[in-house]
Amino acid sequence: MTLTATRWPVAVLGATGAVGQAFIRLLDAHPWFDLVEVAASERSAGKSYRSAAKWLEGTLPESVAALTVKNCTPDEVTAPIIFSALDSGVAGDVEAAFARAGRMVLSNAKNYRMDADVPLVIPEVNGDHLELLTVQRANRGWSGGIVTNANCATTVMAAALAPLHQAFTVTKVFATTMQAVSGAGYPGVASLDILGNVIPFIGDEEPKIETELVKLLGTYRQGAITMADIVTSAHANRVPVEHGHTVCMSVAFATKPTPEQALEVLRGWTGYEAVRGLPSAPEPSLIIRDEPDRPQPRRDAGRGRGMATTVGRVRADHLFDLRLVAMSHNVVRGAAGGSILNAELLAKTGQLAGLARQ
Amino acid sequence: MTLTATRWPVAVLGATGAVGQAFIRLLDAHPWFDLVEVAASERSAGKSYRSAAKWLEGTLPESVAALTVKNCTPDEVTAPIIFSALDSGVAGDVEAAFARAGRMVLSNAKNYRMDADVPLVIPEVNGDHLELLTVQRANRGWSGGIVTNANCATTVMAAALAPLHQAFTVTKVFATTMQAVSGAGYPGVASLDILGNVIPFIGDEEPKIETELVKLLGTYRQGAITMADIVTSAHANRVPVEHGHTVCMSVAFATKPTPEQALEVLRGWTGYEAVRGLPSAPEPSLIIRDEPDRPQPRRDAGRGRGMATTVGRVRADHLFDLRLVAMSHNVVRGAAGGSILNAELLAKTGQLAGLARQ
Amino acid sequence: MTLTATRWPVAVLGATGAVGQAFIRLLDAHPWFDLVEVAASERSAGKSYRSAAKWLEGTLPESVAALTVKNCTPDEVTAPIIFSALDSGVAGDVEAAFARAGRMVLSNAKNYRMDADVPLVIPEVNGDHLELLTVQRANRGWSGGIVTNANCATTVMAAALAPLHQAFTVTKVFATTMQAVSGAGYPGVASLDILGNVIPFIGDEEPKIETELVKLLGTYRQGAITMADIVTSAHANRVPVEHGHTVCMSVAFATKPTPEQALEVLRGWTGYEAVRGLPSAPEPSLIIRDEPDRPQPRRDAGRGRGMATTVGRVRADHLFDLRLVAMSHNVVRGAAGGSILNAELLAKTGQLAGLARQ
Amino acid sequence: MTLTATRWPVAVLGATGAVGQAFIRLLDAHPWFDLVEVAASERSAGKSYRSAAKWLEGTLPESVAALTVKNCTPDEVTAPIIFSALDSGVAGDVEAAFARAGRMVLSNAKNYRMDADVPLVIPEVNGDHLELLTVQRANRGWSGGIVTNANCATTVMAAALAPLHQAFTVTKVFATTMQAVSGAGYPGVASLDILGNVIPFIGDEEPKIETELVKLLGTYRQGAITMADIVTSAHANRVPVEHGHTVCMSVAFATKPTPEQALEVLRGWTGYEAVRGLPSAPEPSLIIRDEPDRPQPRRDAGRGRGMATTVGRVRADHLFDLRLVAMSHNVVRGAAGGSILNAELLAKTGQLAGLARQ
Repeated sequence: MTLTATRWPVAVLGATGAVGQAFIRLLDAHPWFDLVEVAASERSAGKSYRSAAKWLEGTLPESVAALTVKNCTPDEVTAPIIFSALDSGVAGDVEAAFARAGRMVLSNAKNYRMDADVPLVIPEVNGDHLELLTVQRANRGWSGGIVTNANCATTVMAAALAPLHQAFTVTKVFATTMQAVSGAGYPGVASLDILGNVIPFIGDEEPKIETELVKLLGTYRQGAITMADIVTSAHANRVPVEHGHTVCMSVAFATKPTPEQALEVLRGWTGYEAVRGLPSAPEPSLIIRDEPDRPQPRRDAGRGRGMATTVGRVRADHLFDLRLVAMSHNVVRGAAGGSILNAELLAKTGQLAGLARQ
Repeated sequence: MTLTATRWPVAVLGATGAVGQAFIRLLDAHPWFDLVEVAASERSAGKSYRSAAKWLEGTLPESVAALTVKNCTPDEVTAPIIFSALDSGVAGDVEAAFARAGRMVLSNAKNYRMDADVPLVIPEVNGDHLELLTVQRANRGWSGGIVTNANCATTVMAAALAPLHQAFTVTKVFATTMQAVSGAGYPGVASLDILGNVIPFIGDEEPKIETELVKLLGTYRQGAITMADIVTSAHANRVPVEHGHTVCMSVAFATKPTPEQALEVLRGWTGYEAVRGLPSAPEPSLIIRDEPDRPQPRRDAGRGRGMATTVGRVRADHLFDLRLVAMSHNVVRGAAGGSILNAELLAKTGQLAGLARQ
Repeated sequence: MTLTATRWPVAVLGATGAVGQAFIRLLDAHPWFDLVEVAASERSAGKSYRSAAKWLEGTLPESVAALTVKNCTPDEVTAPIIFSALDSGVAGDVEAAFARAGRMVLSNAKNYRMDADVPLVIPEVNGDHLELLTVQRANRGWSGGIVTNANCATTVMAAALAPLHQAFTVTKVFATTMQAVSGAGYPGVASLDILGNVIPFIGDEEPKIETELVKLLGTYRQGAITMADIVTSAHANRVPVEHGHTVCMSVAFATKPTPEQALEVLRGWTGYEAVRGLPSAPEPSLIIRDEPDRPQPRRDAGRGRGMATTVGRVRADHLFDLRLVAMSHNVVRGAAGGSILNAELLAKTGQLAGLARQ
Repeated sequence: MTLTATRWPVAVLGATGAVGQAFIRLLDAHPWFDLVEVAASERSAGKSYRSAAKWLEGTLPESVAALTVKNCTPDEVTAPIIFSALDSGVAGDVEAAFARAGRMVLSNAKNYRMDADVPLVIPEVNGDHLELLTVQRANRGWSGGIVTNANCATTVMAAALAPLHQAFTVTKVFATTMQAVSGAGYPGVASLDILGNVIPFIGDEEPKIETELVKLLGTYRQGAITMADIVTSAHANRVPVEHGHTVCMSVAFATKPTPEQALEVLRGWTGYEAVRGLPSAPEPSLIIRDEPDRPQPRRDAGRGRGMATTVGRVRADHLFDLRLVAMSHNVVRGAAGGSILNAELLAKTGQLAGLARQ
C-alpha cells in the first residue's frame, strides 16, 4: 500500500528489551504512528509478545501483547518506519538491510552514529542534520535510510549545551556522569554491584560522549557536517538510580558568558523551530531550575513526559567559564522517545513521503 | 597528674553524633589512648551515654555506655587530649576554650582549618605541618592547641594527589564528588530525598574543597604554610551510599606525567615517614587498583580498617593531563580516624609532652 | 456565600508536609473542589506557600504557590471542606474546632478514628458508614463533622479483604507489612537508617492495624457500627521503598474458600455502588495479578493514579485458609487520595449540602 | 596421605559464585582447614582462579588467586573435605560422586537435604543429627558422606526457634521473610527489579522453609530423624538489602510461654554443647536485643563475624502465642559459614577420621 494521510504503520526491532518496551509504551495511542509489528531475536520469534517479554514498567497494551514476535528481517517485518532498539552487536547488518529495503530506520545503536552520511540527531538541537539523508541515499543507493540518536549521556549534555554553544561557542567540556541502571538494559546491572554503591566505569561510554558531542553540536552545510571544535573529557559513573542520567559539567567558551547571560540564553531557547508542536516534543524542551539542589533524577526525569532536559546550578567556574548540572530521562529522552521525535520530525518535514509498506 | 609512658586519657566532644560515635568505635581498645570522658550538648549532658545516644553501627563498648555525658567545657572535661566532633556552629568557642586550658584539640570542624597558624593535617600527606603548633601557641598564648583535619571530600583528593603533586606539581584540578549520606551526620539526609536519587548539591562543600586542598598540599617553611598553587573546580553530589566518598578528577601538572609514570609514583609512595607504624596508619596508605571499575565505595571504603584511600582508573585526559578516581571512608579516614592518626603522630613526635590532665 | 452547583472551595491543613503536598497535587484541576486556602503551623503561617514548603514531588501549582499560609483556625480558614493532614499531636483540638464551626473535616489523623460516632471510611469498602455523621452531629451538637480515613497499612488490608469478608467472613488475619518511607512523612526516616536495610518496627503501627481493620470491615446498622469479629496479628516493617505499602497476609474464614473461589470474588468485586464514577475512584478499584511476583510497590503503586489496590499471590495456606499479598500507594490511596474520595462521596450523596463558606 | 593431627586439606566446588567466594573468604587463615583446590564449571576450569572469577567482596587471598580452577570431579579434586556451593541443577550427581569416592561433602544445595539418611544440620541446633552419617554410609555403601545445611531463610528461623522448641514445643509458625539480594547469587537479582522495590516472591523458597524446618527441629533417635510436628506458613519476599535475611514470625506452642519466659530461655540458650569453642562458632550464638527496632540486616548481619543470629521484638501475639523477629547473614550463617561449622563439628567429634587425601 502507499501511505497517505497522517498515520504510518511502524515496527519495533529489539522489542523485548528495556528500550524496546519503552518504544511500546510511548507508541501506545500515538497520534501518527500505529505499532503493527514487533521483532526480536530468534529466541523470541514466533511467540506472542506477552509470553516473549517480561514486561518491566507500566501496562503492556493489549494490542501489543497479542502480536506474534517476528524475526528482524525486512522480509518478515513490513512496516515502512522501523524503530530499532537492537544491540550494537547485531544492529549493523540488520539496520542496513532494512534501509536497503526502503525503510526508514530510527536507530539507538552506536554502529552508524559517526558515519559521515548518517544523521545523529536530537531534534531540538540539530534537526537540520536530517538533510544528510539525501547524501546517505545517494552514497549508498538506499531507498530508505538510517537516522540515529545519540548515546543517552551525550544526549543530556548536548541538550543543555546547544543553546550555549549557539550563543557563546563551547570549546572545552569536563563532564562527570552519574547514570541510572536502566541505561544498561535488562537484566543489566546486578543488584549486588550497585545497591549502596557507585561504579566509576561504564564500558565504552566515555569515548561515545567525547565523539558524539562534536557531531551533535556540529554544523550541516552543503551535504556534510562540520564537527564542532570542542574537546571533551568524560568521567562516566553508574549510580543506584532507576531512571535519569545526571551530568556535572565545567564548560569553556570562545565568548565567555556570565552565569546570568548563560541563564538568559537557556531560558529563552526554543530549539529547532520545526520541532515545536510535534506530538512528542516537550514544551519547554529545557527546564531551568533556580533551586540549588536541582535537577534530581528521581524527581525530574519524568518532566515533559520524560522528554524535557532539566538544567540547574548554572554558576561560575574557577578553571573554565561555567559550571552546570543537566539531567534527562535516559530511556525516554535518551533512547526511545528521542527516536520517536526524530520520526515525527521526518514526518512533518515530508521526509517520510514515498516510503511504502511492503 | 603528669602524663608519662605511652597511655593518654582522651575525651570526645560531640560524642552522640555520627562522627562522635565513630571516635568511640575507633578508640575502643586503642593501644595508646583511653577514652575516659564523653561530652555533648546540654540536651544530653547528665545522662548516661547509653541513654543519650542512639547507637548507629557496630557495638557500643560497655565501658563507654556507662559513662555520664558531660558538658563541653574544660572544667567538666579534664582529659588532656580532646577529640572534637562538634558542629561548626559551636566548635569555634568550645575548641578555643579547651586549647586555652592547655588541651590538645583534634578538630573535625571547619572553623579553624584555614587559620594561618592552625595545622590542617592528613598525616601521610603533610604531617610536618604540625610544626605550626609552635607558632600557634606563641601567637595565641595557648598552652594547648588545635589541630584540624580536612573536609572529608577534600581528604580523598589530597590523599590521592599528594604523591603526584610531590613528583609532578599539580596546577589544576577538576573534581566531581559522589558523597555518602553518612557525611551529613545523623539524622542527616532524609530517605525521601536520596533513595534512588542524586542530589547535585551539598551546602558549603565546594568552597571547602577548593580552599582546603591548597593548604593540605602546601609547604611548611619557617613557621608558615605556603599554599600550593592549584586552582580547583569542584562539583559536589550526594548519592545513596552509606559510607565512602568517591571523587572523579582531571588533573593538570607543571611536569606532565604519563599515566604509567603517575602509577609508578602512586604505587611507590609511602608518605610522611613518621606516620608508618602508627596504630591507626594503614599499610599501604594508598591502594592502587588495576580493574577498570574500582574503587567502589561499598566494596573499598573499609580497606585498611577504613583508613586507606583507593585510587583507580588512572588514565590520560583530553583536556588536562590525567584522569583518575579516588575514594575513602568519609567517617573514618575523612573524620574520626583522621583525627586519631593526627593524635598518634603528635604522640610519637613528642608534641603531647607537657600536657597534663586537669 | 451559600454553596450551589458542583464546585466547593476547600482548604488543606498541614499543607506543608508530605501528605499536605499530596493533597495539593491531587486537588490540582479537581473537577469539583477548588483549593482556596492552605494552613500549617505557626512557623509557616504568614509566608507564601512557595517559601514555606520544600516541595517534594512533581510540580507545585502556581496558584497554590502564591497562597499565603494561614493558621489552622476556623477563623482564618473559611472553606467549608477541610482536608486535614495534621499530625495527631495537634489534630484533636483543631479538627474538632473546625467541625464545631460547621465545616466538614476529612481527617488523616488517628485521633477520632475509633470514636463510635466518627466514620472511618474507605469508600469502596464501607461508604455506608458515612451515615454515622448524623449520629455524630446529634451527639456533639456540631453543624459540621469529622470523617476519617484509616492508617495507610490498614487501608491496603481492608481494600483487599473487603470482598472476601463480604463473601466468606474473615475471622483471623496474620499480616506482615513492608512499608515505604513516605509513610513516615518528611524528613521522616533518616537515610542512614534505611539504605540497604529493614527496620522491623514502626511506632504505634501494629495496634492501629489491629483495631482499625475491625471497624472498617464492620457493619453500619441503625446509627452504630458493629465491629467485625476479626482477630489480627500484625508485624510492621519499614523497607527502602519510596511509595507503596506491601502486606503479606494469611487469612482464616468462617466459610473457607478455595483460592479459585477467592479469586473469582476478588475479580468480580466492584465495591460500594455510589463510589463508581467519582472523579478520584479508580476503575477497577482492585487489580488482581496472575504473575507470581506481583504486586510490587515501585511498579504498581501508581496504578489507578495511585488509587487502585493491587492483589496477587492468592494461594492456599497451611495454617489458615488463604495467603495473599496486597499493595497500594500509602500517600495517595492511604492518605490524601482517600480523603478526597471520601469528600467526593459525601458530595455525591448530598451530605455536603448546607455547608456554607464563612 | 593419611590425615593426622589438626589440619585438613579442603576444596571448594562452585568456587566462582557468590557462596563459593564466601567459602574462600572464610577459609582464609582457617586454623584447621587448608584450602588447596577450587573447582567450578567447565567454562572456568583450566583458568587461574583470579581470571575465572569476578571477586565481589573483600580481598581475594593471593594463595587462592593463583590456583588453577579444576573440574568438579573426584578425579581432579583430591581433598578429603569438599565444600560444595554448587547449584542444585548439578549438585545431585557431583556431590554423590564425591561421597562415593570417600570424601566428606558439606553441601549447600537442596538436593539431599530431605533424604532420610542425610543430616540437615545447624550445629548449635541439631549437631547430633550428624550421627545419621553412619546410616547413610551403611545405606549407600559410601566411604565418604554428605552433610547438608539448610536454606538460608530456614536457617534464621531454626536458630531462633530451637531454644523455644526445646522448652515449649513449637506447633505452628507464620513466617514472613525479607531476604537480601545476595541470597540469589551473582549476578542474581537485576537492579531494575529491586531498587526501591519489594518482590513478594522467591521461587521454591516457601516450600523449602515449610519442609526443612521440621527436619532441623526434629529428633534423632536410633538412626532416624523424627520430624518435629510443626506446621509452617511462609511468605517469602526479596528486599533491597545486600546481606541478611529478616524473618517476622508468629509462633504457637504446646506449652504457652509468656514473652518473659521466652526471653529467659533465649538468653540462657547455649546450644549443642560440642559446638562451643569451635573456630567458627559465634559466642553467643543467639543475640537478644531489647531495642524495639532490632534486628536490622545492615547493622546486625555481621555480628559474630556473620555467624550469630539476632532476635528481637519478642512479644505476645493475638492469634498464636508469641511474635518475634530474627535475622542472620544469609551467605555466612546461612550458607558458607554454616558448612564450615558443620565440618568443624565433624572434625571435633572424630567423624573426619579415616578420610584420606586421594
